[in-house]
Amino acid sequence: MVVKINENYLLIQNSYLFVEVERRANKYQEENPDKNIIKMGIGDVTKPLAKTVVKAFKDAVEEMGHSDTFHGYGPEQGYDFLQKAIIDNEFKPLGVNFDLDEVFISDGAKCDTGNIQEIFGIDNTIAVTDPVYPVYVDTNVMAGRTGPIMDNGMFEGIVYLPCTEENDFVPELPKEPVDIIYLCFPNNPTGETLTKEQLTVFVNYAIENDAIILFDAAYECFIQEEDVPHSIYEIPGAKKVAIEFRSYSKTAGFTGTRCAYTIVPKDIEITASNKEIVKLNDLWNRRQTTKFNGVSYPVQRAAESIYTEQGQKEIKENLAYYNENAKLIRESFLKMGLNTYGGVNSPYVWVKTPEGVDSWKFFDILLEEANVVGTPGSGFGPSGEGYLRLTAFNTHENTKEAMDRISKLSF
Amino acid sequence: MVVKINENYLLIQNSYLFVEVERRANKYQEENPDKNIIKMGIGDVTKPLAKTVVKAFKDAVEEMGHSDTFHGYGPEQGYDFLQKAIIDNEFKPLGVNFDLDEVFISDGAKCDTGNIQEIFGIDNTIAVTDPVYPVYVDTNVMAGRTGPIMDNGMFEGIVYLPCTEENDFVPELPKEPVDIIYLCFPNNPTGETLTKEQLTVFVNYAIENDAIILFDAAYECFIQEEDVPHSIYEIPGAKKVAIEFRSYSKTAGFTGTRCAYTIVPKDIEITASNKEIVKLNDLWNRRQTTKFNGVSYPVQRAAESIYTEQGQKEIKENLAYYNENAKLIRESFLKMGLNTYGGVNSPYVWVKTPEGVDSWKFFDILLEEANVVGTPGSGFGPSGEGYLRLTAFNTHENTKEAMDRISKLSF
Repeated sequence: MVVKINENYLLIQNSYLFVEVERRANKYQEENPDKNIIKMGIGDVTKPLAKTVVKAFKDAVEEMGHSDTFHGYGPEQGYDFLQKAIIDNEFKPLGVNFDLDEVFISDGAKCDTGNIQEIFGIDNTIAVTDPVYPVYVDTNVMAGRTGPIMDNGMFEGIVYLPCTEENDFVPELPKEPVDIIYLCFPNNPTGETLTKEQLTVFVNYAIENDAIILFDAAYECFIQEEDVPHSIYEIPGAKKVAIEFRSYSKTAGFTGTRCAYTIVPKDIEITASNKEIVKLNDLWNRRQTTKFNGVSYPVQRAAESIYTEQGQKEIKENLAYYNENAKLIRESFLKMGLNTYGGVNSPYVWVKTPEGVDSWKFFDILLEEANVVGTPGSGFGPSGEGYLRLTAFNTHENTKEAMDRISKLSF
Repeated sequence: MVVKINENYLLIQNSYLFVEVERRANKYQEENPDKNIIKMGIGDVTKPLAKTVVKAFKDAVEEMGHSDTFHGYGPEQGYDFLQKAIIDNEFKPLGVNFDLDEVFISDGAKCDTGNIQEIFGIDNTIAVTDPVYPVYVDTNVMAGRTGPIMDNGMFEGIVYLPCTEENDFVPELPKEPVDIIYLCFPNNPTGETLTKEQLTVFVNYAIENDAIILFDAAYECFIQEEDVPHSIYEIPGAKKVAIEFRSYSKTAGFTGTRCAYTIVPKDIEITASNKEIVKLNDLWNRRQTTKFNGVSYPVQRAAESIYTEQGQKEIKENLAYYNENAKLIRESFLKMGLNTYGGVNSPYVWVKTPEGVDSWKFFDILLEEANVVGTPGSGFGPSGEGYLRLTAFNTHENTKEAMDRISKLSF
């Protein structure tokens, strides 16, 4: 015998978007060492952890240093103190309730949105919005749920739901039958949202077609407008068809601290081929207890602390800071006459490139003429061509400077 | 269409070993509220984090609270400060060197030993020692690499390599061809080890048969005897055929803190069906960058601190404490005339049950007559029948009390 690799891995495109962005930015900087490049490409936060979080985090580390308060292996699903805080603070105010064992704490929404496909059979058809967060696509390619990538930049076997200015970034229902639909709203990368009515269309589709919605709500904390659902569970019937992913990465600046959670309602039941009725909650619990060993105890205490009054106050200040940046970016582009989206309920601004300029060309113009690094929309999928994403995570000063420079350009 | 679950999940046995152990212990306690039960079943540490670790951990949390020292997304593969510390302290003293990008930091050896099978094709035959840490088996069942469980307690399609007192707990080479071999030495659950010569037999087998060894060295820190390899890379040629898993869980009491690492040498090359030569290092890097987002920054700083002089001193005190318990358990059983294994280079003692008493019966006797909770060997696989595992992680006082009680029993 000869050991065989998982050949699906070879189908993945090797040049990863952000690697190429970094390469071009570094090359420009090397050739122009005197230029001050402002990076507004990657979606990483910059504000430090809130004081309340730091204190709770340290206190829990101190606990780990004493026999009587030491914590060894915790529950793979997370501690109930955090599960309870999430239910009480994130969902009860929306009129939604869960049992503790419907909340799974993890070390990241990337991990959860990447791993969730394991509990589904290989023979499901998946749909993604286009443009899209690459993890949804790549993890299904790696699992063998697709064919190779085609000339149009789409993987064979995946159903793409375009979100462009032509449809106001609201995906249409799939025309062909699909089993699993990934939705991310507020959207990465477009920054646009769905209204309750628009999200209801998808929930009803899933109910009527025995499909499942994987709802990524990682950017929920940026929602400012009314009628934008904070959770898919605000939509009647969603508990029977939807799994929701949430994260502290953006909410509380946890990108380097690592904590997230996923809701898998016990109401989601699927009939197996042997007629056994199986709860997705049981399958995800099996996945997590077999392949995961829980989140660091001090990190869970740190996450819990954001639900205190002072913790809320502090993280909201940080979010307001980013929202102000987003507004500035958005309004600067609009003033320049470019069609601009997102940036209201989202840290992402999605700008239409000037006529005749494609995503990478626009990226190069901003890099070379304004020394600002964005992310080419085409990197997020075929329907992202002709757009560019800027993020609101830099400082006010840098954001203002970047938009001043860009505003001086003429297209 | 109707969404389909991953039906391989239904093949997994539902009653998990430690759940049943807990259930019986709790039932006994409820019926006998005055009894003082001593738990020596689960492999979880009890000593608090070392002072040096607590300080480094807190200092890094403090860094996260300031703009100029804040850390957002880190490298998915881990920070180079920790990769470098691992190479310098764990491998160079053994005469083994690695590049930084051969060391992948993760949140647990359970995660890594569970996820590693993803990078291999479904059509590989795997071999495991028997008894075995259930994660190796279950994750392959969930991936579809096996048939259902058979009446003998083995999964169809997996090759089991018995480790019993008949072969001195040294597995024989598989008689049928296999592609991937899981080895864990010092072994969980038997506590026994392989000599360099014995491990060389497996490395040579892998080289000659184009097989891969997945070597779990999670208990390496308990090795006290000469000629017991600390790493599989001490064996010539292993860098071409072996992946090694290590963890801070036992080494530094990180079971609740979560940090581990996996070595995937760039020398391991496999030819794909299209003749492309693929490095497993690239595949694992792809897996980790797509489905993982790195370990919490303060946790990585905490792990790094154990490599300071003071850190080493402190964690070695804890390990010596556990080793002393293991010795006491081992010697007490030997004095009782029971065949007893492990407990020298391992926190696990593996005791042969008295004649005519099976694993669960012996478990019940210890629970009911000595109020001591162990783990029935049969829970680790068919060849574990007739054995019971006790762990060295309780306090000296409790361990001594437990062995005093057991010593008074007659079999």
